[in-house]
Amino acid sequence: MKKTANTSEPKVEQLLKVMELSKVLNSTLEQEEVYHRAIQVATDLMRCEVGSLLLYDKDAGELFFHVALGEKGEAVKAIRLKMGEGIAGWVARNRTPAVVNDTSQDPRFFSKADSHSGFVTRNVICVPILRKGRLLGVLQAINRHDGTLFNKDDVALFSSLADQVAIALENAALYAELRETFISTAEAMAEAIEMRDPYTGGHIKRVQEYAVATGMELGLDGEELELLRLVAILHDIGKIGVDDSILKKPGPLTPEEAKIMQEHPVHGEKILEHIKALRFALPGMMHHHERVDGKGYPSGLSGDAIPLHARIIAVADTYDAMTSDRPYRKGLSRQTALDEIHRCSSTQFDPAVADAFCKALAKLDQPS
Amino acid sequence: MKKTANTSEPKVEQLLKVMELSKVLNSTLEQEEVYHRAIQVATDLMRCEVGSLLLYDKDAGELFFHVALGEKGEAVKAIRLKMGEGIAGWVARNRTPAVVNDTSQDPRFFSKADSHSGFVTRNVICVPILRKGRLLGVLQAINRHDGTLFNKDDVALFSSLADQVAIALENAALYAELRETFISTAEAMAEAIEMRDPYTGGHIKRVQEYAVATGMELGLDGEELELLRLVAILHDIGKIGVDDSILKKPGPLTPEEAKIMQEHPVHGEKILEHIKALRFALPGMMHHHERVDGKGYPSGLSGDAIPLHARIIAVADTYDAMTSDRPYRKGLSRQTALDEIHRCSSTQFDPAVADAFCKALAKLDQPS
Repeated sequence: MKKTANTSEPKVEQLLKVMELSKVLNSTLEQEEVYHRAIQVATDLMRCEVGSLLLYDKDAGELFFHVALGEKGEAVKAIRLKMGEGIAGWVARNRTPAVVNDTSQDPRFFSKADSHSGFVTRNVICVPILRKGRLLGVLQAINRHDGTLFNKDDVALFSSLADQVAIALENAALYAELRETFISTAEAMAEAIEMRDPYTGGHIKRVQEYAVATGMELGLDGEELELLRLVAILHDIGKIGVDDSILKKPGPLTPEEAKIMQEHPVHGEKILEHIKALRFALPGMMHHHERVDGKGYPSGLSGDAIPLHARIIAVADTYDAMTSDRPYRKGLSRQTALDEIHRCSSTQFDPAVADAFCKALAKLDQPS
Repeated sequence: MKKTANTSEPKVEQLLKVMELSKVLNSTLEQEEVYHRAIQVATDLMRCEVGSLLLYDKDAGELFFHVALGEKGEAVKAIRLKMGEGIAGWVARNRTPAVVNDTSQDPRFFSKADSHSGFVTRNVICVPILRKGRLLGVLQAINRHDGTLFNKDDVALFSSLADQVAIALENAALYAELRETFISTAEAMAEAIEMRDPYTGGHIKRVQEYAVATGMELGLDGEELELLRLVAILHDIGKIGVDDSILKKPGPLTPEEAKIMQEHPVHGEKILEHIKALRFALPGMMHHHERVDGKGYPSGLSGDAIPLHARIIAVADTYDAMTSDRPYRKGLSRQTALDEIHRCSSTQFDPAVADAFCKALAKLDQPS
C-alpha cells in the first residue's frame, strides 16, 4: 500500500516562498538591479520593515551603502564604515552573523546610518556575504514587523539567502565584465582602424560621447543607447577597406577616389553583417553619411527614412571632424563648428537632432 | 512581552534544502553545466531515482534529451519526441504539469526512452519549463525512492523549480550570446584588418582552428584554449599600423620596410594593453614571430622563454601562410608545407609544438 506525503512536512507555501525569492534574485544579470532585489528579498524573508546592502570596498577596507531604499535612503548613501565599526563592521570583520534583538542593550550597536537619517533601529539581523572565501559585503534586515525575536533558524535562513545574493552578485559581475571586455576590444580595434589616419586619435571615444549624450537628450532608453554606443564605436570600421593613398591624402579627392571613399559604410556593413547581435546596429552605421536633403551616401535616403542612430552619428562625427586638428589646418573653434552645424541643419542634418546635439554639448562642457 | 518564533512553522532544514538547490542551479553561467545541475536538483527535490531534461527545438517542433545521466544516458540521447508524444510531449503541448503515479495505468504513457534504454519508468512527475510565455523544455523526475505518491504539493514545488531552471537557462544563454558576439566581432574586425592584404581571406579563421586543435593535442584545458583562441584572433591586428605600400608589396621588403613590418606585434599589444581581461592573451600575440633559436622578433626570446601560446600561433600562422595562394605564387601543397614545418623544427619552431600541430592537422583532415 502506497502512502501519501507526510503531513508533518513543512507547509508547501513556505517552501514556495523561499523559492520565489530565489527567482526574484536571479532573474536579472544587471548589477544595480541585483543590489535592489537583494534588499527586497532580505526584508521579505526576515519579515522586516527595512533592509540594507553594504558592499565591501577592498582597497579602502570599508563598507559602503551602495543602495538604500525609502525616504531615508539618500541620507545614508554617503556613509562608509570601517572594519569593526558598528554591527555591520563587526560582522564584516569577524565574517560571522550577528543578531541584536534590542539595540539599546548591545555595546556593538552604533549606527551612523541612524544618526544620519533619523531612522530608529530597534532590532537587526546582519550576515556577511561571502563567495569562495572572499567578503563581498554585508546584508541587513531591520525592525521585525511581528515583534518576534530573531532566533537561530533566522540566522541559518538569512545566511543561506546571503549565499544566494553572493552568487547573484558574482553572475552580474561576470556579465558586466564580459560586456566591458567586448566594448573595450571593439573600441580599441575601431580606434586603431581610425588611427591609420594618424590625426584622428580619440575620434571614436569622442563620437561615442557626443552621440550618447545626444541620444539621452532625445529621450532614448537604455537599450537604444547601448545600440547607439555600438554604432558610434563601429561607424567607420569600413575605412579599413580604403587604401592609404586615398585615406591619408591631405588634399581634396578626385571623383574616382571619392567614390572609393564613399564605399566605406557599405564595406563596414559587410564586415559585420553575419553577427546576429549587431544586426540592429548596422543600419545606423551604414547610413551615417546620408543627408536629410537626400544628397548624402551611400543610399541617398532623406528625412526620417534615415535611421535615427545614423542621423545622430552624422552630427557627432561631423562636429568632431571639424573641431579636430589636421596636419594642414587647425581644428575649428567650438563656436564656429556649432554655427556650421546650425547652418547645415535641415539640409545635411535633422534639425531636431542638431538641436539636441547642441543642448547635450552644452551640458557635457558644464560639469554637474 | 516578545514571542519567539512559532514552532508550527516548517522545519528550517527543508527551507534550507530548497535554498541550497537554488544555489546549485544558479552558481554557474555555463549552459552545459546548467543542464546537468537542473537534472540533479530535480531528482533531489522530488526524491527520485533519476531525472531528465528535454529541451524544445522550436524549428523542428520537437523535444530532445540534451543531457541524460547514468549508464542508460547515452542510449536516450538520440531520442526526439514530437509535441504530444508520450508524457513529456503531452506536457510540452499543453504547457501543463503531469503526474503519473502508475505508468502501467496511464494511456498517455509511451516511453521511447524506456524502450531504447531498457530502463523501467514506474512513476513520473513532469512539468513544462516556461520563460516569459516561451516553452524552453520539459523537466522530469522518475521513480520515487520512498514509495510515496506524487501529490499536488509536489506539482507546485516542481513547477517552481522549473521556473528557476528557466531563469538559469536564460542567464546562461544571455552569457553565451554575449560571449559569441564578442568573439565574432573581434574576429570580423581582425579579418578585415588582415583583408587589407586581399589575398588572406579566411586566414584568421584557419589560424584559430589550427591553433586550438594544436592546443588540445598538447592537453590545454578549456580556459587556456579560450585564451589561445583570442590570441589567434588578435595576433595580427597590429598590422593596421603598417602602411599599405609595405603590407601589400608583392616582392621582398627592404631592411627599413622589414623593420616597420616587424613592429606589428608591438603595435598590436599597444592597441589592447589597457583591456584587463585581455592581459593574459597579449604575450601570445606579442611573441608569435619569435623563433626557438632566438633569431625571431620583436624580442629575440628563445626556447621556453617564448610563451606557449606564441609558439603555437607561430606554427599555425606559418603553415597557413605557406599553403595560401598569393597573386604571385600558388600556395604550397599540404605535404610540402608539413615537410617545411619539420625542417624548421628546433630552429624556428618548438619541436613538441610542431609535432602536436602535425598530429592535430591529421585529425582535422579526417572527419571523426
